[in-house]
Amino acid sequence: MIALEAIRQISIASPSKIVMLVIDGLGGLPDPKTGRTELETASTPHLDDLARKSVCGLSDPVSPGITPGSGPGHLALFGYDPVRFAIGRGVLEGLGIGFELRENDVAARGNFCTVDDQGVVTDRRAGRIATDKCAELCGLLSQITLEGSQFFVWPVRDHRFLLVLRGEGLAAEINDTDPQKTGVTPNVASATNPGAKHTADILNQFVRKAKEVLAGHRPSNMILLRGFSRLPDIPSMGETYKLKPAAIARYPMYKGLAKLVGMTIFDADGDIEKALTISADCYDEHDFFFVHVKETDSAGEDGDFNRKVKVIEQVDSALPQLLSLKPAVVIVTGDHSTPALLKGHSWHPVPILLYSQWCRPDKVERFSESACAAGGLGRFPAVDIMPLAMANALKLTKFGA
Amino acid sequence: MIALEAIRQISIASPSKIVMLVIDGLGGLPDPKTGRTELETASTPHLDDLARKSVCGLSDPVSPGITPGSGPGHLALFGYDPVRFAIGRGVLEGLGIGFELRENDVAARGNFCTVDDQGVVTDRRAGRIATDKCAELCGLLSQITLEGSQFFVWPVRDHRFLLVLRGEGLAAEINDTDPQKTGVTPNVASATNPGAKHTADILNQFVRKAKEVLAGHRPSNMILLRGFSRLPDIPSMGETYKLKPAAIARYPMYKGLAKLVGMTIFDADGDIEKALTISADCYDEHDFFFVHVKETDSAGEDGDFNRKVKVIEQVDSALPQLLSLKPAVVIVTGDHSTPALLKGHSWHPVPILLYSQWCRPDKVERFSESACAAGGLGRFPAVDIMPLAMANALKLTKFGA
Repeated sequence: MIALEAIRQISIASPSKIVMLVIDGLGGLPDPKTGRTELETASTPHLDDLARKSVCGLSDPVSPGITPGSGPGHLALFGYDPVRFAIGRGVLEGLGIGFELRENDVAARGNFCTVDDQGVVTDRRAGRIATDKCAELCGLLSQITLEGSQFFVWPVRDHRFLLVLRGEGLAAEINDTDPQKTGVTPNVASATNPGAKHTADILNQFVRKAKEVLAGHRPSNMILLRGFSRLPDIPSMGETYKLKPAAIARYPMYKGLAKLVGMTIFDADGDIEKALTISADCYDEHDFFFVHVKETDSAGEDGDFNRKVKVIEQVDSALPQLLSLKPAVVIVTGDHSTPALLKGHSWHPVPILLYSQWCRPDKVERFSESACAAGGLGRFPAVDIMPLAMANALKLTKFGA
Repeated sequence: MIALEAIRQISIASPSKIVMLVIDGLGGLPDPKTGRTELETASTPHLDDLARKSVCGLSDPVSPGITPGSGPGHLALFGYDPVRFAIGRGVLEGLGIGFELRENDVAARGNFCTVDDQGVVTDRRAGRIATDKCAELCGLLSQITLEGSQFFVWPVRDHRFLLVLRGEGLAAEINDTDPQKTGVTPNVASATNPGAKHTADILNQFVRKAKEVLAGHRPSNMILLRGFSRLPDIPSMGETYKLKPAAIARYPMYKGLAKLVGMTIFDADGDIEKALTISADCYDEHDFFFVHVKETDSAGEDGDFNRKVKVIEQVDSALPQLLSLKPAVVIVTGDHSTPALLKGHSWHPVPILLYSQWCRPDKVERFSESACAAGGLGRFPAVDIMPLAMANALKLTKFGA
C-alpha cells in the first residue's frame, strides 16, 4: 500500500475514464454438490470475454482472514486504508438511511430495549418491535427538548434507530450506554476524553428524558446507545486522485459512502440494467464511475445460492452497454465475499478483473474465484486497486526521479 | 497484516478447534538430479489428499528474502509480527535450554574465549571447547558471589553458555562485551540507557570475577557476553484470540516459544507418531493445538536430503490419527524453509495448506512447493495465518460496520 500523500503527488488529471463495477458480496463458496461457487455456476459470457483481455486476481478488502463490513469494504475499493479511516457505527447507520450528516454531527446507533422496575435491561431489542412501532416511538423522542444541542431521532428498522446530535462543541469520545448484555442497568454516557464531557452531559439528559417519555411503552421502555462517531476526516478523491468521480448507486449506504470521498451521486433507480447505464451527461462530466450492484449481496445474505447466480447473470447481460462507452479502464470486483452458504459477509478474497489497453493480460479464461487465483494480479490488498486503476488510465506519473 | 488490537476486538471464544501442524524447516530446494524438493520427493498420500480439500499457498515468515531464526519463524505463525516482537539472543538461548526465565530476568549469551597476557582476545570461541568442559567452567562461574543480583550460569553447547541475572531494578539496555573480533580487548559493559547503569555495574563486577576464576584455564580464560535481553512484553493468545492454546512439542526452544504466548505445554516424548497424537484430555480442554515436528529441520541442517524426505513421510503416515479428531481447521506448514542443499535455514517461502469446511478449496492436487505456488492463498506473510485460521474456525466477527 502506497500512502495517499504519495498518490496525491503523482496523480494527474486527464480525459481517460475509469469504470469500477462493484458487484456487492461477489465472492462465494462452492456448492458442495457441484464444487462450483455462485460466480462459477453463473453463465457469464461477457465477463469471461472481458477477463480474457484483462489482468485478474484475488483481493483482500482489509487483510487475510478479516470479514469486512460494507464501510471498510468500500473505503478500500476507493483506495483508502480501511483500518486508518474507520467509520463509526453511528455514522454508518446515518449513511445507511440517507441522513445528511454534517461535519461536526455526533451520530449513534440506538436500540429500543426493555428494562424492569429497577431499570435492569431484560431485552436489549425490546422483542424486535416492528419498524412502524419504532417510527412511532422515534416521533415521541423527537419531541424531547434538549438543552445545549439540536438532535434528530430517525427510525432504521425493527428496534433500531439513529440519534444525531448537532451543535457547538460536540465530541464523539463517549462510551456506549449499551451494556451489550442483559441483567444489568444501562451504562451512563461518559467521556473517554475530557473534551467530550459536555456531549456526555447532553446525552445523559437525553437518555433520562427518553426514559420518562417511554415509561408507559413497555416492552420499548428504554433506549441503549452505541457507536458514537463523527464523519471521518478523509481526503476527497478529487484531492487524492485529481478525479471527478461519480457514483451510480441505489441504496443510501453506498451513496453515503461515495459521498464521504467526494463523489457526485447519481441515483440508479430501477433494475440492474439501469444501474449499469451511465447517462451521457454523467459520462461526459466525470472520469471515474463507481457503479454499485447490491442484489448479489442481498441474495448471499439470504442464503439463496440460485438467486445470487441469477443476479450475476443479469449483471453479465447488462455489461455490453457499460463497455460500449469504451472507458480506458474497467474494473469488475466486489467489496467483499458473501457466500450463500455462510449467509453473510465473509473473509474470502474477492475476484477482480482489470481491463485496459495497458493491463498486460494473463492466462485467465473465465471470471471466477479459482481462475482469478492464478491471475497476473496475484492476491493483493484491495486498497491497491485504485493505484492500479490510475496507472492503467495513465493518470500516475513516475514516483521518484 | 492486521493489528493485534483489531483482532482482539473481533475475536470470539467458541468450541471449534484449530490444529496447526508445524513441520520445522519444511520448505526445501530441488535436488539438481531430479528437480524435486524434499517434499516433492516424499510419498505423501495423506497430505496430498488433504491438500485437495484445502486452500494452499506459500508464506513468508518475516518478509521475502529474509531468513528467519526459530524465534521470528514461530512468532509469525502464532500471529505476532516478528519484527515488532523481537526476541533477544540471550532470551532465545534461555528458551533453547529450557531455562525458566522470569519477567524481569536479564539473559545474555556467553562465550568462553581466549585472551593473551594483555587481555586481548585471540580466540572468540576458546577453540570450541567440548560441552563437558563448558559445563565444568559454568560450575566454577556459578560459585562467584555477586553484590546486587542473583545469577545463573548454564552451559549450552561447546563454548556457549547462558548468563541470567535476577534481582531488583535490572535492565537489558547494555552493550555487548563481545567485540565480535580478535585483536582487541573485550568491551566494558555499558548502559545504552541511563536506567541500565546499575545492571552494567553488576555485569562488569561479574566479568572481572570471572576473569579471576578462569585465569588458570587457558584457552578458556575469559568470557564474552552479548544479546542482553528480557522476555518480550507480548499479549497472550488467550487475550488476543480468546483461545485456550496447547503446544505439543519435544524441544525446549519450541516449548519456550509457545509458553511466551501463553500456551499450555504438553511434552511429546518419543517419535513423530507420538508427536502427532493429541491426548483426549488435552483435546477436550483446549481449542488450539500447536504440534511441532523438529526432525525435518535437523535433517535439513545436516544436509541430509534423504533423511528429510523420510521424516516427511513419517509425518504423512501419522497424519490420519491427527485428522481423526476432526478439528474444524487444520493447518500444515513450517516455520521457515531448511533446504538440505543449503544446510541451514533459508529465505524461501514455506508451503501451507489450510483445511476447513469453509476454506474455498483451490485446484492444488499435491502438497508441494510448486503446487502451493498456484494455490488460492497466494503468497502472503505468515503473520496472516492466524487470522485465516480464526476466520475459518468462525471465531472472528465482522470488522467495521
